[in-house]
Amino acid sequence: MRVTQRVKKILSYYESDNPGTKTNLARILMQGRLGGTGKLVILPVDQGFEHGPARSFAPNPAAYDPHYHFELAIEAGLSAYAAPLGMIEAGADSFAGAIPTILKVNSSNSLSRLKEDADQAVTGTVQDALRLGCAAIGFTIYPGSDNAFGMIEELRELAEEAKSVGLAVVVWSYPRGGNLSKSGETAFDICAYAAHMAALLGAHIIKVKPPAAPFELDAAKKVYEKEQIPGATMAERVRHVVQSCFNGRRIVVFSGGEAKDLDGLYTEIRAIRDGGANGSIIGRNTFQRPKAEALAMLDQIVKIYQGKA
Amino acid sequence: MRVTQRVKKILSYYESDNPGTKTNLARILMQGRLGGTGKLVILPVDQGFEHGPARSFAPNPAAYDPHYHFELAIEAGLSAYAAPLGMIEAGADSFAGAIPTILKVNSSNSLSRLKEDADQAVTGTVQDALRLGCAAIGFTIYPGSDNAFGMIEELRELAEEAKSVGLAVVVWSYPRGGNLSKSGETAFDICAYAAHMAALLGAHIIKVKPPAAPFELDAAKKVYEKEQIPGATMAERVRHVVQSCFNGRRIVVFSGGEAKDLDGLYTEIRAIRDGGANGSIIGRNTFQRPKAEALAMLDQIVKIYQGKA
Amino acid sequence: MRVTQRVKKILSYYESDNPGTKTNLARILMQGRLGGTGKLVILPVDQGFEHGPARSFAPNPAAYDPHYHFELAIEAGLSAYAAPLGMIEAGADSFAGAIPTILKVNSSNSLSRLKEDADQAVTGTVQDALRLGCAAIGFTIYPGSDNAFGMIEELRELAEEAKSVGLAVVVWSYPRGGNLSKSGETAFDICAYAAHMAALLGAHIIKVKPPAAPFELDAAKKVYEKEQIPGATMAERVRHVVQSCFNGRRIVVFSGGEAKDLDGLYTEIRAIRDGGANGSIIGRNTFQRPKAEALAMLDQIVKIYQGKA
Amino acid sequence: MRVTQRVKKILSYYESDNPGTKTNLARILMQGRLGGTGKLVILPVDQGFEHGPARSFAPNPAAYDPHYHFELAIEAGLSAYAAPLGMIEAGADSFAGAIPTILKVNSSNSLSRLKEDADQAVTGTVQDALRLGCAAIGFTIYPGSDNAFGMIEELRELAEEAKSVGLAVVVWSYPRGGNLSKSGETAFDICAYAAHMAALLGAHIIKVKPPAAPFELDAAKKVYEKEQIPGATMAERVRHVVQSCFNGRRIVVFSGGEAKDLDGLYTEIRAIRDGGANGSIIGRNTFQRPKAEALAMLDQIVKIYQGKA
Amino acid sequence: MRVTQRVKKILSYYESDNPGTKTNLARILMQGRLGGTGKLVILPVDQGFEHGPARSFAPNPAAYDPHYHFELAIEAGLSAYAAPLGMIEAGADSFAGAIPTILKVNSSNSLSRLKEDADQAVTGTVQDALRLGCAAIGFTIYPGSDNAFGMIEELRELAEEAKSVGLAVVVWSYPRGGNLSKSGETAFDICAYAAHMAALLGAHIIKVKPPAAPFELDAAKKVYEKEQIPGATMAERVRHVVQSCFNGRRIVVFSGGEAKDLDGLYTEIRAIRDGGANGSIIGRNTFQRPKAEALAMLDQIVKIYQGKA
Repeated sequence: MRVTQRVKKILSYYESDNPGTKTNLARILMQGRLGGTGKLVILPVDQGFEHGPARSFAPNPAAYDPHYHFELAIEAGLSAYAAPLGMIEAGADSFAGAIPTILKVNSSNSLSRLKEDADQAVTGTVQDALRLGCAAIGFTIYPGSDNAFGMIEELRELAEEAKSVGLAVVVWSYPRGGNLSKSGETAFDICAYAAHMAALLGAHIIKVKPPAAPFELDAAKKVYEKEQIPGATMAERVRHVVQSCFNGRRIVVFSGGEAKDLDGLYTEIRAIRDGGANGSIIGRNTFQRPKAEALAMLDQIVKIYQGKA
Repeated sequence: MRVTQRVKKILSYYESDNPGTKTNLARILMQGRLGGTGKLVILPVDQGFEHGPARSFAPNPAAYDPHYHFELAIEAGLSAYAAPLGMIEAGADSFAGAIPTILKVNSSNSLSRLKEDADQAVTGTVQDALRLGCAAIGFTIYPGSDNAFGMIEELRELAEEAKSVGLAVVVWSYPRGGNLSKSGETAFDICAYAAHMAALLGAHIIKVKPPAAPFELDAAKKVYEKEQIPGATMAERVRHVVQSCFNGRRIVVFSGGEAKDLDGLYTEIRAIRDGGANGSIIGRNTFQRPKAEALAMLDQIVKIYQGKA
Repeated sequence: MRVTQRVKKILSYYESDNPGTKTNLARILMQGRLGGTGKLVILPVDQGFEHGPARSFAPNPAAYDPHYHFELAIEAGLSAYAAPLGMIEAGADSFAGAIPTILKVNSSNSLSRLKEDADQAVTGTVQDALRLGCAAIGFTIYPGSDNAFGMIEELRELAEEAKSVGLAVVVWSYPRGGNLSKSGETAFDICAYAAHMAALLGAHIIKVKPPAAPFELDAAKKVYEKEQIPGATMAERVRHVVQSCFNGRRIVVFSGGEAKDLDGLYTEIRAIRDGGANGSIIGRNTFQRPKAEALAMLDQIVKIYQGKA
Repeated sequence: MRVTQRVKKILSYYESDNPGTKTNLARILMQGRLGGTGKLVILPVDQGFEHGPARSFAPNPAAYDPHYHFELAIEAGLSAYAAPLGMIEAGADSFAGAIPTILKVNSSNSLSRLKEDADQAVTGTVQDALRLGCAAIGFTIYPGSDNAFGMIEELRELAEEAKSVGLAVVVWSYPRGGNLSKSGETAFDICAYAAHMAALLGAHIIKVKPPAAPFELDAAKKVYEKEQIPGATMAERVRHVVQSCFNGRRIVVFSGGEAKDLDGLYTEIRAIRDGGANGSIIGRNTFQRPKAEALAMLDQIVKIYQGKA
Repeated sequence: MRVTQRVKKILSYYESDNPGTKTNLARILMQGRLGGTGKLVILPVDQGFEHGPARSFAPNPAAYDPHYHFELAIEAGLSAYAAPLGMIEAGADSFAGAIPTILKVNSSNSLSRLKEDADQAVTGTVQDALRLGCAAIGFTIYPGSDNAFGMIEELRELAEEAKSVGLAVVVWSYPRGGNLSKSGETAFDICAYAAHMAALLGAHIIKVKPPAAPFELDAAKKVYEKEQIPGATMAERVRHVVQSCFNGRRIVVFSGGEAKDLDGLYTEIRAIRDGGANGSIIGRNTFQRPKAEALAMLDQIVKIYQGKA
């Protein structure tokens, strides 16, 4: 694997990591059609836990089969595939070495009635990731939740162990619970704060939602206004999130956000690109379409990150 | 032990497991009268914990003796016998090697007054399963309960350890607690969701209850209706549950469900078979009858799975 | 130590235990005047924790001295002596080898105000039992209590460790807390249920209270009536409890029950004997009398179990 | 160090302890002016945690310096010095070997608002005690508190570890919290109960407060009256507490109790002596006076225990 | 590194620490422009966790980059740089050996809604500090909070481990939560108490806020008045805090306190110096200014501690 100068530059930002972890970051950054560009697109399939099988896969029944998602990610030339334990176990051998995998090690579900104390169950381990040949673990935190400190401490334990054995750590930083309003979960100030916390916690790759324009916290709003931090456009808001991740020293990717039509999606992804982020992590928008449609859509997204669309 | 092509196919779905675990799955799948067919019938005897000794065994007092259940399972040519620690300890040596055993490692009881936070006590360990020569551990989760995340994390620890020492993992996925209604515990959408969660958690064999026709969650109902997922008959609902278990890549068995007459039971089991499930796990319906009657009934059930009845 | 056929038969029921544990069970079953008969009488002295020193020992001040209880058990020719850590530590060396000891490893006290969530503190360990030369550990569970699952899990850990190092496990199964009524704690159905749970949890010796005639749970009452389980006399109820302990495959002993006169006590013990139980475990009734009286009483109890009274 | 017959006798009561622990008990019992008599006076300085620095040390500012307390205990010829981690760390090297130290390993403080669930934080470990050359660890339990079981379990862990490495265990048994009234904390029955529990928990040295005359628990009061346990004088009540500690087989020391004038203090200490207790553990009464006054007072206390005053 | 007599004197106060820990304390005390004087100024950057990225860094956007803070601390000739995991990871290699670092191992954030039970999440470990080449760990406790005992126990574990591997321990002792009033968090008596607790817990370096004049606790107020403890001026109050830290045997540093103009800040720092404290730990006041201004301000602060301003 010949590592590009661009990727070497990114790896240099992870200056405290061991060569094992850098190798796994390089595997992701050199994979697929965006390999070597510093950009990446990840396929995450954890919707089965979140919403159940029918709501996840009935629109495209081929997706009930775990092999489908490996194939989709590989055929689309994506950078990595992320899923919970069972989904990875069911394809890890057939697709060994074909694409970097990210073991999502905690998950929530729609049957649980937690609100202010939003939480997830830890469903996988670093040892699982190693035996399954994964490049990274993925972990969700809910900053703001009454369980946030507990989740952060779970992440600390898992991340420390992951780093010590040469795995990378991807953090889904999704503010939720506590006093946060529903709209506050994607507020400009909150997204930036969530991304920054993930960076402080030692994440290598940070996943947040695309930030909306309004603010959630008055104390923050005052500073944004006083310091005139640009935030009128999505690209500006993304730029601030990237800045909040150690001024670009950490990889930041954005989820697909709310359901929207393809044009709306492409527009948002161009803004994410223009804001300087590293890429996207898109699940339902991909595997809920027939494969041909999904591949066409992902082709367009890859081209956007290549600067060709 | 000569493993059939059908069983080899099933074992191939467990592509991330070590040969130890596959050997124990093969022991179960090659055992008894259904050995080699990919179908299985398991005898579970955990009712003593759940309902007390008299409610479990008084209708057939021979069943107070733990040896009785080993003998019943062996004489009926079943695939495996599952029970809590004490029951297995009391016969493990006398019947060593005679039939695969599944150590049920958590249990609830009728004296506890937990409701929304339904839970079970962990009563056995992987080490217990090993010293008693078991082929698998069995664990119940209550998706929906306020304790569900804790139970899932207990399962994660036990399952990871079990897999590492070559044992199989059987998960009883019984939605309960939280906001779930009583009827919702066996609703169509909920059963499929529960089975899918067990698959995501890395179960080798998944046990759920036969799904009833109504739905519990509105969000799910909409999708089932929009995508026109067939569910009018038990066989159709079972087929969807099987699909929800990685499109058939995981073994799914169904419990005996509500008490009913023999004809009703046989009809249900035919539907389970026709829906493509792997078999049944039937407790009270067997050991609460005189042995001769139980053997006759199990003979009929085996024949149904053999396609002869 | 020459082990009788009767004791060998009993030991054979513990078929999954290692020779170390069987040796310690044999030490208890071959000890004292009932040695070799399969019957046993145990002296428990944990009342200091439960009720304080004066309520326990003031009626017979010699009993403040821990050595007194060792001597009493030895002189009366009993099978074993059970007590908490401090009591055993204070005599373990002076009486090393003279009588098997059971380290009671959890205890409650009268100052605590727990009700529905009745609990005990774990006050000793398996390592303590080993260094003090004990033959067994003793542990109380409160089935029904809101803390019952936690207590059961503590027992699981201690019992697994005890068995692995060749100790026996004695379980005090005392329903309490939760929704249980005061009279329900000794109801017929509840006593049998409690004994059965202890057996399922892997206990070698099960201690319950003498069952009273009424029922606590409606669901159980229906079955007892339908199946016509005999329970009019104490002997019948004891027989059902023995049956509930794996049909006699586990040693069951009964506590002294409510305070009563000597004739009442002897009558009850004859019923316990006639019901097929293995013996008694009697504390306050013994050490709260002057030694000579206690020895006379214990002589009579031993004779009852010998079938001579 | 030549051990007296009296001390050898006391050591013989700790018959289950290893020579390491007996050596450390001997170090305390042979130390200072009361060395060899079986009596002891201990200086405890944990008031900084309990009440803050000014309330503890402002009356005698020299006491802000941790070295002061080592010097005071040594110059007064006391038996041991007890304090929390920081206080011991700050003088352990300067005074290594000069006086046995007791590391107080849990502490409360005046800022915490716990009431029924009175608790302390564990602030030191057995490993700390070893690296600092201590002879014992000290631990407070609050029998009656809603946290009592948790505290007892912390003590069990620490005590087991301490004994295994040859340290002695000193237990402050201070009833508090739960349903206990304020006056009940030092009631006659409660003090005896508290001391007995500490003995049952395996303490080598038991510290309680001087018992007041009234009773707290009705059930206890009845027994005390029925059995006519003497309790009119402090000496009688102390004698009963000593009896409650395994009939004198465990060392019992009393705290200084409520603030009082010197005559009142000496009178109380004579009663403690006359009741057969082993000594006193006095903090604020000592270090809140100018050193010369404190030394004079301690000289008088030592003489009382020597039977010379 | 030639250690001055003044620093050797300070190191001698840490008489129980191993040479590893003393070496790391010496690294801090000999670093920068105040190296060797016994005075120190530390740069802490944990505001990103506490207030989010924009409120922390927008006033001086260069501060979004973790390297900025290393450079600022080095150029200003400070004694050490303290920050959470991610901030240290992002610069630890580039600035290895250039300045002692303190890994802040717990953190709170503005999204959490804890009040009486104020808490922080543990976000780093001793192992992290070692692999990153840190000289110390930093830990915040909230004395008074309903979670204070838990935080203290986390500190005990981390501090014991840190000391055993030769790291120093810095404790932020910030009273908060429980019954404490807002003004009480910096009350004279409370600050002294908080500092004393940190000392008792074994801290090497204690950080508290500058004490205000009023009292919080009546019981304390009485003693301060009776004993006439001087507290009219900041210097007097600081002197009492120093006294409360083992009479000067522990290093005490003060935070920058409430936002104020430069003259107010310098005046306060002179009072801290005059009260005999060891120095300051100042965050927002430094990195929220343009670098040149910050360096000028820090130059003045250093001069104050040098006695030149």
